[in-house]
Amino acid sequence: MAEMITSRQNRKIIDAHALADKKTRDKTGLFAVEGIKLLNELVSENVKLCEIYCTKSAYARFHETIDSVKDRCTVFEVTDEVYEKLSFEKTPEGIFAVAQKTEIFDDALETPGKGGFVILDGVQNPSNVGTVIRTAAALGVSRILLGEGCADIFGPKTLRACMGTLFKVNICVTSDICSQIQKIKDAGMKVYGAALDDGSVDVRTVSFEKDDCIILGNEGNGISKRVLDLCDKKIIIPMQQNAESLNAAAAAAVLIWEKQKGVM
Amino acid sequence: MAEMITSRQNRKIIDAHALADKKTRDKTGLFAVEGIKLLNELVSENVKLCEIYCTKSAYARFHETIDSVKDRCTVFEVTDEVYEKLSFEKTPEGIFAVAQKTEIFDDALETPGKGGFVILDGVQNPSNVGTVIRTAAALGVSRILLGEGCADIFGPKTLRACMGTLFKVNICVTSDICSQIQKIKDAGMKVYGAALDDGSVDVRTVSFEKDDCIILGNEGNGISKRVLDLCDKKIIIPMQQNAESLNAAAAAAVLIWEKQKGVM
Repeated sequence: MAEMITSRQNRKIIDAHALADKKTRDKTGLFAVEGIKLLNELVSENVKLCEIYCTKSAYARFHETIDSVKDRCTVFEVTDEVYEKLSFEKTPEGIFAVAQKTEIFDDALETPGKGGFVILDGVQNPSNVGTVIRTAAALGVSRILLGEGCADIFGPKTLRACMGTLFKVNICVTSDICSQIQKIKDAGMKVYGAALDDGSVDVRTVSFEKDDCIILGNEGNGISKRVLDLCDKKIIIPMQQNAESLNAAAAAAVLIWEKQKGVM
Repeated sequence: MAEMITSRQNRKIIDAHALADKKTRDKTGLFAVEGIKLLNELVSENVKLCEIYCTKSAYARFHETIDSVKDRCTVFEVTDEVYEKLSFEKTPEGIFAVAQKTEIFDDALETPGKGGFVILDGVQNPSNVGTVIRTAAALGVSRILLGEGCADIFGPKTLRACMGTLFKVNICVTSDICSQIQKIKDAGMKVYGAALDDGSVDVRTVSFEKDDCIILGNEGNGISKRVLDLCDKKIIIPMQQNAESLNAAAAAAVLIWEKQKGVM
């Protein structure tokens, strides 16, 4: 083990913890993950690590992973009190890593991958964004487009929900979702928007093709009007009348499944 | 407004907050919900309310709901400091209700409803349990069987995730899931267990019938061996090889959808 940090006021600790905040992530180009499972994902996906902070007991448990990367990042041992200052979690495992953000594309058509996109329009809840990315990755969608108002993909809750799959798909983040969707359409892909509208078509009647895209909207308000106007079709999952609705991530799972099940 | 509570040491406040704990819920037969949305669900589903605690500003915002039920429960106004003691939430709306647990069945075959069950075997995460209940309700499954090791359905996180749908389906909770599954099978229903095993059958090849049941297992370890041995078939959602897996609630959404889409 290298350096030991015993002060909660240590600059590195304060800076690392500040990565909980999107502004700090944007300014520094860094992000942080906590827990051995996510760290192992970063390692196996060759994400560039900067620093690892761990408690003595975490080092004892996880030294295999830590030793395997100690030549390509700085490892700090921290006391339990310092770790508490660093941590985002309620019941932390005592291992925290700072890494460089992976490449995010700003042009949908330059985003590597084949087949249609999963498109998120204002999906606010980081757990939903993470779960949708995990679902897309598992079901073979390799490109995700996120528009305005979506939770940050490098936030701790998003990272926890997507369980490392963030680094297995290619992500485009845009501040002008309409023009990106237009580009996707101009390239010959169809876009289907999930909408609880009377005019929506039952998803069971749609014959999806490999290049089709699914748009998912905000948890409370659905897809924004201007995005909905771009959709080739509005689709709906039929539901029981007395049931409120599906959770956004559950609805996404059903729609991504319907899109992919014929082409997997 | 009736009585005012200004002390954080008030017995009622301590007792109400203690409903965060399963043991207290089991002992008292009560549970608690927080937020106007859940309270409105309790009201519309005629769940028996005991007490409502609200701050002055919450009363101003939500007096319509509160006034509509003040004849069938006791309403307390509490100070912000007292509310803080009561609350389970990080950003509370200032409204908290104590209610009597609704009827839970202990015999699957006496649980009202038609069609097959969704069966949970050791689903630990309360958000997953709640999301699965919400998905089942939305997609028309009216009976849920929960076995050993599942998160408590009356816990605050489960209630938040199921968004009131708990009171729209019928729930059987058992401490002997194997004998309940055997009863279900003896009654002529088939049970399909979700399992990431080599021997599992691709869910796309299964022709589900209305009475079929889906079993979902623990987030980390899947369905327990003794329950798996009772399954008529083990089923799997085909996934990308490099993708870890689907989140439990997302997998449940796909499987419940596959079971229900032909019979809705």
